[in-house]
Amino acid sequence: MKVAGAWRRTIERVEGRQAVRVLDQAKLPYAVEWLELATLADCARAIRDMHVRGAPLIGVTAAYGVAIALAEGVQLDEAIRVLAATRPTAINLRWALDRMRRASDPFAEADRIAEEDVALCEAIGRNGLRLIEAAAASGRARVLTHCNAGWLATVDWGTALAPIYKAHEAGIDVHVWVDETRPRNQGLLTAWELAQHGVPHTVIADNAGGHLMQKREVDLCIVGTDRTTRAGDVCNKIGTYLKALAAHDNGVPFYAAVPSPSIDWTLDDGAAIPIEERSGDEVRFAFGREVVPAGSAVANPAFDVTPRRLVTGLVTERGVAPASADGLRVLFPEHAR
Amino acid sequence: MKVAGAWRRTIERVEGRQAVRVLDQAKLPYAVEWLELATLADCARAIRDMHVRGAPLIGVTAAYGVAIALAEGVQLDEAIRVLAATRPTAINLRWALDRMRRASDPFAEADRIAEEDVALCEAIGRNGLRLIEAAAASGRARVLTHCNAGWLATVDWGTALAPIYKAHEAGIDVHVWVDETRPRNQGLLTAWELAQHGVPHTVIADNAGGHLMQKREVDLCIVGTDRTTRAGDVCNKIGTYLKALAAHDNGVPFYAAVPSPSIDWTLDDGAAIPIEERSGDEVRFAFGREVVPAGSAVANPAFDVTPRRLVTGLVTERGVAPASADGLRVLFPEHAR
Repeated sequence: MKVAGAWRRTIERVEGRQAVRVLDQAKLPYAVEWLELATLADCARAIRDMHVRGAPLIGVTAAYGVAIALAEGVQLDEAIRVLAATRPTAINLRWALDRMRRASDPFAEADRIAEEDVALCEAIGRNGLRLIEAAAASGRARVLTHCNAGWLATVDWGTALAPIYKAHEAGIDVHVWVDETRPRNQGLLTAWELAQHGVPHTVIADNAGGHLMQKREVDLCIVGTDRTTRAGDVCNKIGTYLKALAAHDNGVPFYAAVPSPSIDWTLDDGAAIPIEERSGDEVRFAFGREVVPAGSAVANPAFDVTPRRLVTGLVTERGVAPASADGLRVLFPEHAR
Repeated sequence: MKVAGAWRRTIERVEGRQAVRVLDQAKLPYAVEWLELATLADCARAIRDMHVRGAPLIGVTAAYGVAIALAEGVQLDEAIRVLAATRPTAINLRWALDRMRRASDPFAEADRIAEEDVALCEAIGRNGLRLIEAAAASGRARVLTHCNAGWLATVDWGTALAPIYKAHEAGIDVHVWVDETRPRNQGLLTAWELAQHGVPHTVIADNAGGHLMQKREVDLCIVGTDRTTRAGDVCNKIGTYLKALAAHDNGVPFYAAVPSPSIDWTLDDGAAIPIEERSGDEVRFAFGREVVPAGSAVANPAFDVTPRRLVTGLVTERGVAPASADGLRVLFPEHAR
């Protein structure tokens, strides 16, 4: 990824120390700052308070968190318990911790997980590129995305945005409708990262996407996922389900970009996925100001589940699968049961 | 309506002068201030810049605007031209100006339009009350609403919120899910006005409603409208369509509160309704701060159209009609054609 003209990753080892450096997403898009994580507590806080975010990057940060904790002398079980409790919905977190539980060289294993993430995302980019090429057959592809599933949500490339970067590199005329994504406005992260790469885009309120689809202004939707069930139900940032409904109602293809560590092979029904309820202050405060009247209650569910019937396909590192148990089983036979 | 404990209306004649006083909605919910409109320019600016808002109140303000303009010595045609150009979507504006064109005593006619608005809204409250009573049969009615269609959007009572006030007065346990309604956050107006009357409510991001419906946390949706076609397509604040899709997908009844001046008897297809594109600064700035990166474009369509197939019924002053030409024709035979 490109930050202020230089190529960097969202998470990097600190040379000569048992620590990592992460791009601080709580400061973006208003300031580019790096945050050093040198203890288990640092890593857990960075995930919980969303200095790092995005299911793949949460997994990688947790992997380094285990390695850092062990270097501090923390017991493995305790490190895994603390990190597993940071956020409940992203399955990548559990997946990465499972791998770290079996690792003989913890930092080397965390490095491998990070490198694999880059490769998975780039493969998703290549596989998704074909969908954008098809959408652009008439000259231009107008893609709607929700939240941030770009390189900020991963180590590099991103999931939903990887095909967009590939298309932009290939000279395809691609334009991105960026959902603001209240209450945390991760759409502004998407806008910022697309701007770093010169990809044309337009920020819209979360309310606008349905209307744009009715008016034939959207050729394709691509979103990320925090957990997709083996049967193809897609859990992603709150509001994704509404866009999937609108896409279905208007015949707009709706894809989720799903690296295999985001697949929960133990679940069929998305309704069983635990949905994080985050602090109401994320709704009550906007940019540091208390905006909701004090006498009003607030609620803040952070994710929703889009049922597979509304999903055109799952863009994985091994290809695009129909959103169904059969679809995923063909691409990932080792998980068949 | 109750403002700081006293009963007032959103628009009132200024005694002894040819002017009106309006509750300044650009300042709410953070300050309760009244704004005097004494010239045509004052009235046009108040509508355009949303010091007054809500289709019924726009209509009433425009009616007084004509009376004030004539008192200033402005020609009738010029007054109507200026006021008609303020906002394109709300049909009440055109309806009120048509009435004022034929008025012999302009202030008396504007007073009549204001009084009629109160009566229409109270009748909608009585008719909608029955829907809430039915929803509350199991003990409690949980109603989701979008934007503000309360007394702030009218002279008194409101449209979508009138049944809620009637239910609350009747002792029904009613709770309101209040969509924040980006980009202008009219949900905060709804929260503020419900708080004035002690009606329990919870503010949520616009993204959350679909998930709440999936989780069976919503018994009923009621929204207002800026223009409903004679065939029952409902144009309302941007994002309404997404909630109607979710309601339909989850078997939640979805009603629009439609006073007859909001019905466009000349149109069948909602797609023909002009959709106001408001300034992108409403998206770019939040509470005075520029939040969208400068290199990013913004778009800001202000309304969308919910097709009648997604609407359970239209709550009018004469009763609840199916969202269809036949449904409205039965209640309003004088408009049959």
